Amino acid sequence: MAKNKKAAARKKMVYYFGDGKADGNGKLRNLLGGKGANLAEMSSIGIPVPAGFTITTEVCTHYYANREKYPRELAKQVDDNLKKLEKTMGAKFGDPSNPLLLSVRSGARVSMPGMMETVLNLGLNDAIAAGMIEKGGNERFVWDAYRRFVQTYGDVVMGVAPEGKEHDPFEVAIDKMKDKRGVELDTDLTADDLKKLTADFKRIVKRRTGRKFPQDPQEQLWGGISAVFKSWNGARAIIYRNINSIPHEWGTAVNVQSMVYGNMGDDCATGVAFTRNPSTGERKFYGEYLVNAQGEDVVAGVRTPEPVANMRKAFGPAYKTLEGIYKKLEKHYKDMQDIEFTVQEGRLWMLQTRNGKRTAAAALKIAVDMVKERLITKKEAVMRVEPDQLDQLLHPTFDPKATRNILAKGLPASPGAATGTVVFTAEEAEVAAAKGEGTILVRLETSPEDIGGMHAANGILTARGGMTSHAAVVARGMGKCCVAGCGDINIDYGKDQFTVGKTTVKKGDWVSLDGSSGEVMLDQVATQEPKLSGNFGTLMKWADEFRKLDVRTNADTPHDSEVARKFGAQGIGLCRTEHMFFESDRIRWVREMILADDEAGRRRALGKLLPIQRGDFEGIFKAMKGLPVTIRLLDPPLHEFLPHEKDQQADMAKQMGVSARVVRDKVESLNEFNPMLGHRGCRLGITYPEIYEMQVRAIIEAAVNCKNKRIKAIPEIMIPLVGTVKEFTELREMTDRIAAEVMAAKKTKVKYMVGTMIEIPRAALVADQIAESAEFFSFGTNDLTQMTFGYSRDDAGKFLGEYVDKGILATDPFQSLDQDGVGHLVEVGTQRGRKSRKSLKVGICGEHGGDPSSVEFCHNVGMNYVSCSPFRVPIARLAAAQAALS
Amino acid sequence: MAKNKKAAARKKMVYYFGDGKADGNGKLRNLLGGKGANLAEMSSIGIPVPAGFTITTEVCTHYYANREKYPRELAKQVDDNLKKLEKTMGAKFGDPSNPLLLSVRSGARVSMPGMMETVLNLGLNDAIAAGMIEKGGNERFVWDAYRRFVQTYGDVVMGVAPEGKEHDPFEVAIDKMKDKRGVELDTDLTADDLKKLTADFKRIVKRRTGRKFPQDPQEQLWGGISAVFKSWNGARAIIYRNINSIPHEWGTAVNVQSMVYGNMGDDCATGVAFTRNPSTGERKFYGEYLVNAQGEDVVAGVRTPEPVANMRKAFGPAYKTLEGIYKKLEKHYKDMQDIEFTVQEGRLWMLQTRNGKRTAAAALKIAVDMVKERLITKKEAVMRVEPDQLDQLLHPTFDPKATRNILAKGLPASPGAATGTVVFTAEEAEVAAAKGEGTILVRLETSPEDIGGMHAANGILTARGGMTSHAAVVARGMGKCCVAGCGDINIDYGKDQFTVGKTTVKKGDWVSLDGSSGEVMLDQVATQEPKLSGNFGTLMKWADEFRKLDVRTNADTPHDSEVARKFGAQGIGLCRTEHMFFESDRIRWVREMILADDEAGRRRALGKLLPIQRGDFEGIFKAMKGLPVTIRLLDPPLHEFLPHEKDQQADMAKQMGVSARVVRDKVESLNEFNPMLGHRGCRLGITYPEIYEMQVRAIIEAAVNCKNKRIKAIPEIMIPLVGTVKEFTELREMTDRIAAEVMAAKKTKVKYMVGTMIEIPRAALVADQIAESAEFFSFGTNDLTQMTFGYSRDDAGKFLGEYVDKGILATDPFQSLDQDGVGHLVEVGTQRGRKSRKSLKVGICGEHGGDPSSVEFCHNVGMNYVSCSPFRVPIARLAAAQAALS
Repeated sequence: MAKNKKAAARKKMVYYFGDGKADGNGKLRNLLGGKGANLAEMSSIGIPVPAGFTITTEVCTHYYANREKYPRELAKQVDDNLKKLEKTMGAKFGDPSNPLLLSVRSGARVSMPGMMETVLNLGLNDAIAAGMIEKGGNERFVWDAYRRFVQTYGDVVMGVAPEGKEHDPFEVAIDKMKDKRGVELDTDLTADDLKKLTADFKRIVKRRTGRKFPQDPQEQLWGGISAVFKSWNGARAIIYRNINSIPHEWGTAVNVQSMVYGNMGDDCATGVAFTRNPSTGERKFYGEYLVNAQGEDVVAGVRTPEPVANMRKAFGPAYKTLEGIYKKLEKHYKDMQDIEFTVQEGRLWMLQTRNGKRTAAAALKIAVDMVKERLITKKEAVMRVEPDQLDQLLHPTFDPKATRNILAKGLPASPGAATGTVVFTAEEAEVAAAKGEGTILVRLETSPEDIGGMHAANGILTARGGMTSHAAVVARGMGKCCVAGCGDINIDYGKDQFTVGKTTVKKGDWVSLDGSSGEVMLDQVATQEPKLSGNFGTLMKWADEFRKLDVRTNADTPHDSEVARKFGAQGIGLCRTEHMFFESDRIRWVREMILADDEAGRRRALGKLLPIQRGDFEGIFKAMKGLPVTIRLLDPPLHEFLPHEKDQQADMAKQMGVSARVVRDKVESLNEFNPMLGHRGCRLGITYPEIYEMQVRAIIEAAVNCKNKRIKAIPEIMIPLVGTVKEFTELREMTDRIAAEVMAAKKTKVKYMVGTMIEIPRAALVADQIAESAEFFSFGTNDLTQMTFGYSRDDAGKFLGEYVDKGILATDPFQSLDQDGVGHLVEVGTQRGRKSRKSLKVGICGEHGGDPSSVEFCHNVGMNYVSCSPFRVPIARLAAAQAALS
Repeated sequence: MAKNKKAAARKKMVYYFGDGKADGNGKLRNLLGGKGANLAEMSSIGIPVPAGFTITTEVCTHYYANREKYPRELAKQVDDNLKKLEKTMGAKFGDPSNPLLLSVRSGARVSMPGMMETVLNLGLNDAIAAGMIEKGGNERFVWDAYRRFVQTYGDVVMGVAPEGKEHDPFEVAIDKMKDKRGVELDTDLTADDLKKLTADFKRIVKRRTGRKFPQDPQEQLWGGISAVFKSWNGARAIIYRNINSIPHEWGTAVNVQSMVYGNMGDDCATGVAFTRNPSTGERKFYGEYLVNAQGEDVVAGVRTPEPVANMRKAFGPAYKTLEGIYKKLEKHYKDMQDIEFTVQEGRLWMLQTRNGKRTAAAALKIAVDMVKERLITKKEAVMRVEPDQLDQLLHPTFDPKATRNILAKGLPASPGAATGTVVFTAEEAEVAAAKGEGTILVRLETSPEDIGGMHAANGILTARGGMTSHAAVVARGMGKCCVAGCGDINIDYGKDQFTVGKTTVKKGDWVSLDGSSGEVMLDQVATQEPKLSGNFGTLMKWADEFRKLDVRTNADTPHDSEVARKFGAQGIGLCRTEHMFFESDRIRWVREMILADDEAGRRRALGKLLPIQRGDFEGIFKAMKGLPVTIRLLDPPLHEFLPHEKDQQADMAKQMGVSARVVRDKVESLNEFNPMLGHRGCRLGITYPEIYEMQVRAIIEAAVNCKNKRIKAIPEIMIPLVGTVKEFTELREMTDRIAAEVMAAKKTKVKYMVGTMIEIPRAALVADQIAESAEFFSFGTNDLTQMTFGYSRDDAGKFLGEYVDKGILATDPFQSLDQDGVGHLVEVGTQRGRKSRKSLKVGICGEHGGDPSSVEFCHNVGMNYVSCSPFRVPIARLAAAQAALS
């Protein structure tokens, strides 16, 4: 115990920086916090930062572990560093004739913007204010600094806070003063006004806290330090950490730094800049500054800042220094920097540097350029681009110059820009498309029956449903623009119109949708096609060199397959055969099959479907040019193929030559309480084997036909919704039997694989049993997430939003794979599967296949591939490369 | 290799038995099969069994592993044993002057009744038949035996089988003969007729197989042995093994045994008997026999058998031997035996002995008696009674003497006997109950709104739904008789009647339901109350001495709680608060809460519910007399509390003073695609915290009030449907806050626990996180099974039956816990939970808590308790004891 105390006493708790040197460096983020480490790093490479010192996060931890007491040695270390600081800055803390003023700021390992406290201008008191003015200082500046200090210190350190519904007493005093002077703005107050306000503020502090505002700079300093440490456990900070999963035991560091001012006169200025253009990536210094101003003034927009290049004239030497610094910073950090600086009396001080945010186009250009400039390697370039950002580049966008007449806003369900005339039914969209007219399909919500119309429309707008509703999922799969859950629109199908407030939009009117922002606009807004520039191609080529995971696509049509192949897909990971069942030339036979009274009747109807399905598969094999194609046998419950509305049922009955009652009875008998957990997937294959038999026959016949036409076809037959090993073995036997029959009849052999989707929790748990006869697994993480969480994707919108807002869930688990729960099953399933079959091919085909963090997870689990919608293939390729590199 | 062959050659493949000795014994079941081991055991303790030998199951395995070839040494071993057999029996195989005839039978480790082949009278040929008759044998007997042998051998060994729709050619020949003779029965045929038939049969064999019926007894013997081995892999046997999870590699043994005949004359007889009364358990030799008859005649019922005691007169010496034997068998096997015997020419032969099946009452009496007789220990007694059998004793039953006028048959959904007048709505049942009238509630299917009526009725009859439908589950929980899914009844709500065929049953007519058989009867059938006899109490006391698991009950009312406590429940493991919400004095407030526009409105309505809920809990605490009570906070989605039919919605609107549209809109807005996976459980608690706050307040206030009345109350508050740790921690914080508030206000402290139901797969996977703040886990295996399998309990009926029939699933996973999948999650959840919190209390509260094999699983996992419906508490107690003992 005694020994520990001594060790603690000897421990370095304060790290100095300034004057081209620093005790710490950029790597000590955990000890010094992000800001402290950054300041140390800049200082140590000779960047002129206002000198100062950082009190470590360990002091914070000690403080809370010991009833808010500091380690005994801290006072001395702070003192020593303060002396060093005085020496560096050539000024003295508390000396009226040459005062050193300080800022005291928090700085945790990760940024928690606005959650903790800051005190500026610390060290000011009556004597020093007087001294500064005496020495010829700008009187207004001095009193403004002083009154600000009293206000902040009163709030933050001494706890002057408005009570109940009362207004902030400091602000009340300012307002009174302005009224008295008959002015509008704080800046219109004179030096004298501010001096009086300072006195008022001190009285407020006394009245509210019973204590006088401290005149002793040392007392001020320790008050400031304590206030920062205390703010780590303020209510706001705790909630923020809970939401963002930041451990409470990390603690914050405290940065004590000398103040510099950009607002002391016309030889002062302040500015922000980027080392390259953050919008285009162009290699050109880019930024703005304001003369005689403080940092916040540049952003606030009260005065118009000037381009940073203009500084060359007005602040010649400072600008020259700045030029040298920004180049040095880029070389040092090897990335485009976002910097803040201040010029005080002609001397340049750097306040902050960090990697700058940029658009996708800029990110690509900067990464590729920096490789050319030999600043970074190809690997580093690949790591520099956010995969999700690429999405911006892969869809049409609105011309940024076009005017937008915004009518309503829904969820940005599937990115892109679309314009078209309004239609309210899938049929209308199909009819219009046949005439070459572009439409926007507007529905309360979509259902599988609308697939044809969704394909035909330019964009989809729904009034209900969330980011994972049917409309959203299908639209993303098609790469089609979709705004979902736009509750502002009131659809009246009867009148063929919808209204938003008092605006009525009729069938045939033009509207435009922005799938990236969720905006619904009146009229035609001009769009521009995506340009996959040279930089895009270059970076993707590099990414492909590094990645280990294959990237496949989810595609159900030859057209989607081709799009995906152009985006770099290495096969189809999920071809959903049910989408094929809905098209108009076949839904009739599907319904006839469902209405049939016996197996013979079903087989007759399936016989009509066989040649059509075979044609589908031939088309896809052809489009994929010899790449593997995973075909999932029929998955949805049969009732999805029957109409649910009375009129449509009557139409169907007429078409099929049966009574409406027959149709209604069938719909009722197939009705399910929880269709998600119902009679679907391989459960259909077991109870109606003839359906899967037809599909297997179509697949193998298609492969044989392709072979005879010298087109390579690699079918991988996937059995969905397997939960028990016997489901799989029974259906695999059937598959092999039918395949053997076809090959014998056609006298041609083709290779094929048989595997399963792992989407039922139980399947992951008994994966070892299943892998004994399955050749591949594809994790269907959409359904696996539904069942592992017990969330219905169609219903969870009622609480998921609140769950994410309240921090119960970090993210929507349908968008980013839940690694603790669902991910655990994926891992267990993969391991157990590979235990039984070393060569087991493992992939993922849920929506997560295109989510970068999920792709990383799949890489780490050791999967062979991820599969995602065509438009996310490049994103997955890049994410896979980053996973391999990190 | 060579060595192995030698070892195999030396291996003993044939085990002899007979003459008071045996090579094997009862423990060699795996090697000799059940029948072979049994015969060896009997023989070795000196029971007179017809001598014979058993060819081991290893020979069967070898046979299939070696392209249906026998080990080289087998022929010699069979030969040696056959010689021994001839010596024992004093007869010679194939000797016309003194022939030995044989039976050849299969015998696997476990009985596979009717799945494999048997050949009797083997060794007969023309010469031997002639010889037997010549020596004065009963001519008719000889020809009957011969023609039977030719028929069986032709079928089984030589493959004479009817083709297509053709009738069995042997049976055709018999029918022709009977026509010719103008007789009705086989037994009316004369010796001569049978002789002619034998010749016809041999011709049939020649014609159908191209081969002559073999006259060589050795050829017959090997043909018979091969036929038995081959039948192990017959289609029927394979399917049977698949369904019953019997490994295909076990193989069958072959038993070759000398024939004995009970039908050679009046000094012959055959009989079956039990060593004690299998119906009452009375210690009295009990059985029947027939003179001059074969075994099947006793069962067939053509002739009326005599009580076995009558043998004393007619078969004095044989009966005396039999008496000695049955006593010896009981002493040896230490259990009541079911025996088969034959007397041939005055000499007694035992054919079979096995533990006899018995009723629950008999099982109890026999077990308790045998302990008194010092035949078995208490532990053995506890192991002797099938827990599931107790069910028979725990419900009222129909007087077995009463006549039953059976109208229809449905599923035996919840056992018991009920009579009452027919009503068609829950309200009518409640009204009648208020007047003291017993009813049978007849519904298409029930829904949560019917709970009150189900409680009020004597029994429930539904036209739809399976063993796990709402009606079935709720009725079992209440211990109420229920016949579900009775498709024969056509309900016409409009006319207040139902019909079955041409019978019409109107409202007010009497009907009776047998919940154990599914029978629906007209009129009042007399019932008798269950008598929990002294034996029941004795055995349960012994069970309690041995078991380690506590047994709790699922109960929602003081009445159910009391019933359960009388059945031995040690607490409530699941008190579902939603059932309380449906009762008529409160549903109004529940609906007002749901219709409220804002939190304030909800809180107003909840304020009305608070005192009622508090009263509920006080009642239950009182009934449980200081035993712990686990109360689950509200679980079902809110739409369950609103009516779904238009009329009822209108009624509700009127009652609440709102427009019908308001009700309809609310029902629509709450509608869910998959309510099972929807907005329910703790998801309600997070989004509408005021609901759970009211419930916690009611629980703690009730506990405080009880304490003030000196009633001990141990509330365990259970948060349902937790899937993420933050759901739990947030709601636990709320619970502790409210509890502290109540205790401070009332100035009384009470103890309580807070835990969760583990029913979401993810919860089991992150159980370590949850157990950090949860004090107990209760596995809700109903929902856990639904989500782990992806089966909706309400819908799975559409395929589960077929799954079990086809052997895809061994049993319905909602009835018996799936140990591979769901069980794995239970195990993982328990282990991870206990890793974080050693003292974690773990139980189960799904339907499985009353299923014996699931109880055993829970014991093995190391749970603290199981919880089941009141009427299954004794079953669980016994099952828990058996688990601890085995």
